[in-house]
Amino acid sequence: MSSLRYAVIGMGAIGGFYGAKLARAGREVHFLSHSDYEYVLSHGLHITSCDGDFSLPHINAYGSPDEMPVADVVIVGLKTTNEHLLRTLLPPLLHPGTLVILIQNGIGVEADVQSWFPDLALAAGLAFICSAKTEPGHVHHQCYGSITLGNYSCRDEALFQTVLADFCDAGIDANEVDYLEARWRKAVWNMPFNGMTVALQTQTNQLLAHLATRQLIYEQMMEVIGAANALGVSALDESFAQKMMQMTDEMVPYSPSMRLDFDFHRPMEIHYLYTRPIAEARAAGFVMPRLEMLERELLFIDARNR
Amino acid sequence: MSSLRYAVIGMGAIGGFYGAKLARAGREVHFLSHSDYEYVLSHGLHITSCDGDFSLPHINAYGSPDEMPVADVVIVGLKTTNEHLLRTLLPPLLHPGTLVILIQNGIGVEADVQSWFPDLALAAGLAFICSAKTEPGHVHHQCYGSITLGNYSCRDEALFQTVLADFCDAGIDANEVDYLEARWRKAVWNMPFNGMTVALQTQTNQLLAHLATRQLIYEQMMEVIGAANALGVSALDESFAQKMMQMTDEMVPYSPSMRLDFDFHRPMEIHYLYTRPIAEARAAGFVMPRLEMLERELLFIDARNR
Repeated sequence: MSSLRYAVIGMGAIGGFYGAKLARAGREVHFLSHSDYEYVLSHGLHITSCDGDFSLPHINAYGSPDEMPVADVVIVGLKTTNEHLLRTLLPPLLHPGTLVILIQNGIGVEADVQSWFPDLALAAGLAFICSAKTEPGHVHHQCYGSITLGNYSCRDEALFQTVLADFCDAGIDANEVDYLEARWRKAVWNMPFNGMTVALQTQTNQLLAHLATRQLIYEQMMEVIGAANALGVSALDESFAQKMMQMTDEMVPYSPSMRLDFDFHRPMEIHYLYTRPIAEARAAGFVMPRLEMLERELLFIDARNR
Repeated sequence: MSSLRYAVIGMGAIGGFYGAKLARAGREVHFLSHSDYEYVLSHGLHITSCDGDFSLPHINAYGSPDEMPVADVVIVGLKTTNEHLLRTLLPPLLHPGTLVILIQNGIGVEADVQSWFPDLALAAGLAFICSAKTEPGHVHHQCYGSITLGNYSCRDEALFQTVLADFCDAGIDANEVDYLEARWRKAVWNMPFNGMTVALQTQTNQLLAHLATRQLIYEQMMEVIGAANALGVSALDESFAQKMMQMTDEMVPYSPSMRLDFDFHRPMEIHYLYTRPIAEARAAGFVMPRLEMLERELLFIDARNR
């Protein structure tokens, strides 16, 4: 068991869940919380999970990063609509060897954070999980839960591997993957389903139950795969789109995070989920017309929703 | 003044308006009405118009085509979702020289009606008008009102010209145009705005007020123009898209007919407005991805709306 000190930024569906798993396994975890701080300080953190419910009555919770100790590993579970906050939230938590793992949606988050902190060791965390924060201090884990880590700029290979081992020890199915491939692999599911459940005010199962939208979802997946191919990710092809369709067919009816953001009138993660990947693909000469259209629809819907 | 006898099928925003204009000008007009028959028989037909209101207290109204005299000209203002009804509604109204004018939305209506009546003389009527039936026997004409006629299969050139003259005599801005060009010219406006006002539950002005959807509408217009070019209509280029954008900017906030159909839970004209032109363009080697996506969204929305 490692003695790494973890900090978690964002106690939502992602940071709350993975942080709680690590803490339950005995790791030292410090949670930075904005909206849930008062609640978790008194009542702790509660996970309702398909793998078995558990609670952490006492956690290290903080309302400001200035009160927190520096960490060896920072797990970022912040919404990318608040990405700019990392410019002030991260510095108090960093020592020269800290690894920051961005468990966030979309394409381009590592590039932006790296531009703000050029010497920072960064990794991408890709969570394949259905979970949601249902109320302060409560995370509902519906299904799945694996995570893959892609090394973006961490030169300390031993640290990176220790983190992977810590995740596995905590009962999390964790593996290392190629960074760029992993980000685009996740986009194959995220780009169609997040936006379409908002645009059509529906859930994953309904989109797949109707022939017209089932075809559209598949076409959008193939646009993402085409973009990934154009950017040098050669491992993705139509068999992966078919696999994602099948996986979603077998899932419970699901509202992705963007649909929940819409429902609660929160800003939607349009920039990193759509604008950035669309721009990166276009720069490589690949156009995603259906996802460009979806982005434009979402920008309209987002403006009206606030 | 001609002595042509007109029959109008459908007393809605289109048939009611143009039929009323012809009747007011002294033409013999016979109206076939389904839902409005009882009302107009007792109370007549009322037009609220930006060009001046008028009423026709007594009109020749019928509840069945079997009660009507044969006509020299049949004006069809039926929704294309009821296109199949023409197979039984038209025959009682026809003599060997009857010209049938389809003032309907979309691409492919003439081809289908011709397949049912191979010897019929057909023309397309393209109405550039903002109008709506607000209640039985009442049509609200908000703005515009011109019509262009495209000869599809009428060999009686004198008859065709007489009809044009009758429209002009009735105060309608009417001109002859090339059939195929006219159908696609209208599609440049119809395909983006009809579907997008439904997909985003909005009106024309809001779509143009937001930068993202303004770009999308323009991109969709250019897809229609590309399809028209691929099908041999060379007269349309981006200057026409720009003109349509400007015209719509200057219009009152408008709910196109598909939006009204949606609002009243009526079937939407997806087949002739989207499915057919998309298929014809594809057959000519041109793909309209944004309008294909819109068609798929509309099929999903339509199924849920009924």
